[in-house]
Amino acid sequence: MGLFRSKSVVYKPARDVDLGPHSDEFYLQANVKAPRMAGVLVKIFNWFLELPILGSLLLYVLKEDNLIHKLITRAKLEEPPLYVPLHQSGDLREKEVKCLDSALSPPEKAEFAIECLPVYSENNYDEIKPSFCRWTIMDYCRAYRSEHITPRMVAQRFIAAVSDSSKPTLNMAFFIDYNAHDILRQADESTLRYQRGKPISVLDGVPIAIKDEIDCLPYQTTGGTKFLHKQRPCTDDACCVKHLRLCGAILVGKTNMHELGSGTSGINPHYGTTRNPYNSTKIAGGSSSGSAAVVSAGLCPVALGVDGGGSVRMPAALCGVIGLKPSFGRIPHSGVLPLNWTVGMVGILAGTVEDALIVYAAISSGEIPSHQPSGILPKIHLPLLSMTKSISDIRLAKYDKWFNDCSEDIKACCSKVLNKLQHHYGWKTIDVTIPEIEVMRLAHYLTIASECATFFDAFREKNFAELGWDTRVALNVYGAFSSKEYIKAQKIRNRQLMFHKKIFAEADVIVSPTTGVTAYPIRDDALKSGELDYVNGAALIRYSIAGNFLGLPAVTVPVGYDKTGLPIGLQFIGSPWSEATLIHLASAMQTICKSEYRKPQVFYDLIKED
Amino acid sequence: MGLFRSKSVVYKPARDVDLGPHSDEFYLQANVKAPRMAGVLVKIFNWFLELPILGSLLLYVLKEDNLIHKLITRAKLEEPPLYVPLHQSGDLREKEVKCLDSALSPPEKAEFAIECLPVYSENNYDEIKPSFCRWTIMDYCRAYRSEHITPRMVAQRFIAAVSDSSKPTLNMAFFIDYNAHDILRQADESTLRYQRGKPISVLDGVPIAIKDEIDCLPYQTTGGTKFLHKQRPCTDDACCVKHLRLCGAILVGKTNMHELGSGTSGINPHYGTTRNPYNSTKIAGGSSSGSAAVVSAGLCPVALGVDGGGSVRMPAALCGVIGLKPSFGRIPHSGVLPLNWTVGMVGILAGTVEDALIVYAAISSGEIPSHQPSGILPKIHLPLLSMTKSISDIRLAKYDKWFNDCSEDIKACCSKVLNKLQHHYGWKTIDVTIPEIEVMRLAHYLTIASECATFFDAFREKNFAELGWDTRVALNVYGAFSSKEYIKAQKIRNRQLMFHKKIFAEADVIVSPTTGVTAYPIRDDALKSGELDYVNGAALIRYSIAGNFLGLPAVTVPVGYDKTGLPIGLQFIGSPWSEATLIHLASAMQTICKSEYRKPQVFYDLIKED
Repeated sequence: MGLFRSKSVVYKPARDVDLGPHSDEFYLQANVKAPRMAGVLVKIFNWFLELPILGSLLLYVLKEDNLIHKLITRAKLEEPPLYVPLHQSGDLREKEVKCLDSALSPPEKAEFAIECLPVYSENNYDEIKPSFCRWTIMDYCRAYRSEHITPRMVAQRFIAAVSDSSKPTLNMAFFIDYNAHDILRQADESTLRYQRGKPISVLDGVPIAIKDEIDCLPYQTTGGTKFLHKQRPCTDDACCVKHLRLCGAILVGKTNMHELGSGTSGINPHYGTTRNPYNSTKIAGGSSSGSAAVVSAGLCPVALGVDGGGSVRMPAALCGVIGLKPSFGRIPHSGVLPLNWTVGMVGILAGTVEDALIVYAAISSGEIPSHQPSGILPKIHLPLLSMTKSISDIRLAKYDKWFNDCSEDIKACCSKVLNKLQHHYGWKTIDVTIPEIEVMRLAHYLTIASECATFFDAFREKNFAELGWDTRVALNVYGAFSSKEYIKAQKIRNRQLMFHKKIFAEADVIVSPTTGVTAYPIRDDALKSGELDYVNGAALIRYSIAGNFLGLPAVTVPVGYDKTGLPIGLQFIGSPWSEATLIHLASAMQTICKSEYRKPQVFYDLIKED
Repeated sequence: MGLFRSKSVVYKPARDVDLGPHSDEFYLQANVKAPRMAGVLVKIFNWFLELPILGSLLLYVLKEDNLIHKLITRAKLEEPPLYVPLHQSGDLREKEVKCLDSALSPPEKAEFAIECLPVYSENNYDEIKPSFCRWTIMDYCRAYRSEHITPRMVAQRFIAAVSDSSKPTLNMAFFIDYNAHDILRQADESTLRYQRGKPISVLDGVPIAIKDEIDCLPYQTTGGTKFLHKQRPCTDDACCVKHLRLCGAILVGKTNMHELGSGTSGINPHYGTTRNPYNSTKIAGGSSSGSAAVVSAGLCPVALGVDGGGSVRMPAALCGVIGLKPSFGRIPHSGVLPLNWTVGMVGILAGTVEDALIVYAAISSGEIPSHQPSGILPKIHLPLLSMTKSISDIRLAKYDKWFNDCSEDIKACCSKVLNKLQHHYGWKTIDVTIPEIEVMRLAHYLTIASECATFFDAFREKNFAELGWDTRVALNVYGAFSSKEYIKAQKIRNRQLMFHKKIFAEADVIVSPTTGVTAYPIRDDALKSGELDYVNGAALIRYSIAGNFLGLPAVTVPVGYDKTGLPIGLQFIGSPWSEATLIHLASAMQTICKSEYRKPQVFYDLIKED
């Protein structure tokens, strides 16, 4: 194998790396060496991968070509490994925030979040009049309280809408499973509570969809596969779902997803490919494809997803909704498929930042993850969105080369919004260099791949042949790493956290586009076999990694559209010690963008008055 | 490879495993399939291992034969991985302890520890008169203060003694390096402080030796190798050494060790094989061989070692001294060779439990490990050894089958001491089952191996051929694991922690012998090539793993001798939440054993009055 042997990289100690705008650290563009494949090509490729000796050779060449050997396997770096990106919130560094008492019940937490929102009044609420807006949790709540409409009516309209969206003409493939009877039962109970004047919380009667990676009774949890639910029966709600149920929310079903979360397109050969409500010939993005699409299409104000490599933020951006991934560990993970352990967590897709905040408060942690060092209970701070003083002196870190490594439309749109933010709020942009972003992408890939392969090991013998072809290829690659490579990836994780901490000492958040491309076309040959498109995949995931690999909180906000009318998201990445500031800034960004929000082609209005 | 394919093990969920004395969990004896090798045999074996294809096949067979495939690689288990066994001390669960303020300076910490010791008085101090005892820190301190003797005189005697021990007739190989000039300089400074009546702390002028895995100026840090110090110059004291220096201790040199800590015998082909002061034809144990031997031989009351797989406790037991490994992370690790990141830490070898306590207090953490979740600063509690009430209601957990899986002499001696403890203090023994101890040994091996191989990667190309032959074999095996295997080992770690937490809910400490065998002979063929003796190695390490893999505090106390006069140690393993209790119990055990302590064959008395 000496022929292929590339040189090893010796990394400079992290503390000596210059993160300023004139740093000599160079920006390495993703250099993905893998052609798009679908249909019979994927099958042939997989056949090669599974050959006893040639398969190993092919894997070696793939790792070599994609610079994994050079940048990770043979890397020399002194930083110790960081295995789990868990951060304590420590002392309150932020101003104008409220500390959420972890002893509160979920409904109390949701109510507590409401106190952080701007007070509704005709005078100030819609200061910037939106051209289009989705109904919010508060809209549902007000409609129910005013008895214009009941949860029962919403549930009926929801069921009719999902049925409509599933027709062959639309074929949106939003859900893997939903149960009309169970939805109506919940809606009836909620309706009764409103009639008695005793709703449980603002979430009472609000339809919320759950990604099919999260346990939610009475459904099985497929993880987008054909077999997982048979091997691992769902016997209880996940902790986060339990919290929503306690708040009175109507759990309306299990949303579609990329199989095992192993891709970013949302193309699922088993349950159909979720289509983008803004253009149904395009992907919704993934892996939380269904959760993004149902919020986009107006079916729910909020849905839960899971974000292991941008899987909440990418589809949110592609479908024009909010995607919030809090700091690692701040939403309890029990009852979520353990596809990985150190990068993924539940995230929230919503129509507005305020709605994401309410649900975040309701489901936030009161539980120590069992695989974490004991005794750590993060404090959660909520931003006081009603105040604006605290967001007057804000510094946004921007790494130009990275920021601009996206399609022209995205670059133009995001730059314009950034200018607006500077102009409207007086925020400052600081130019920085974030070194080794591509190295981080590879290290994250190696990590999530190794963890997912470990999870899948229990099913490999029996169920491998039931996977889609793209997932089969993925899992064959996922299992190809050594323990040394895994540990080196964790050293790179620590190194990157050191870089990011340095940046957060100077800036409040890092700003970037959410994805490098907007929603791309669903091609027919992909529908049955799944699709391998690592080039588009790398462009989609380009800005997501720090959120997962370093456990940083991140949020995407829709800020505009490309020339073909497809949504564009702008992302803020925050520090775990100022998560509330991050959410506050996202809300401020939403405020100046919402006047231009457009309605998707596929949209359902569940609380219109008849 | 189908021929070799053993069946996979499906592990019962940890919460369902019965840990009672009548559990049907069976005790799997270590079934090491590797013959002892030394001399030319090791070289041939290594040659095979390095063959391109046959080498891989040989590694596969080794892993298969030693049940790694069956018990780990193909294991199915549901517990999430635990990567770093870091425990916060949380609330004070213990009685009669003092909480060490982490803001104190090292000398203040040492003085604070003194307040925990029984007050010296002629009436009570030597309640049980020892037949032999080593000089303690307090003995040095009292001698210096009373001006019977000066640090300068001790230093001179120390230098003469080391020189004597290095003669061809003894050839003890205690040190890799020591510098008479530097020792005398420190001693002179200390002498001056005593003359001025201003010693810094009780440690002022006390000789302390440092394992050559820990940075200590003016020496280089070889890690027992011939090359590491050339690649990685030592430019500063390690944090723990800095603390000792601040206390006025005389740092007397770098003790010998097993090369890269990769073995348990202390046989080092480069710097000579440390010999056991109780019988110089026997090993001292390892990897902290020199540190154990110098304390045993009376050269220092205390020495520092590093314990990644029993490397402090095993040589301590074999050389008849105290070995204390505190809870993971409670002694700062910076300036220690990063041979691994999740199992090893600095430990203390001492003549008495009280001396180990003083030094532990002096070097304990004021620093958050950089590769740990941020913000965790463990509280350290010290036992009030002057009180005895708190040790009246004690339960010792004992797993019979494991306890008895050792040589007849060890079994008889440890059982006798256990009876004494029950009789003398009224402590109770609880019979328990600790499941999967052998699985834990393999998972720990896989973990420390993968981490050490990752560390060594930076030196492989240039320095591999400079390693001893046993270490070459070890490192060839260390690199043979996949990321999936590594992650599964971490799942086993979590599982074991769950078992141990359950046991600590019922018992104060777990009691076991420290090693399965006493010091075995040094054979001539091993001196130049190193030795592979995984059978003896497994017997030595049998009781050490939980301390490293689960980060639990553990301490070994000499409790007797085998028929040939070689020391036997008994070990208490504690919970991270009652570390002070653990130390208190060890002190109580020492009290009832010390009347029978014997003087080693090789012994130097540094504070005898001329």
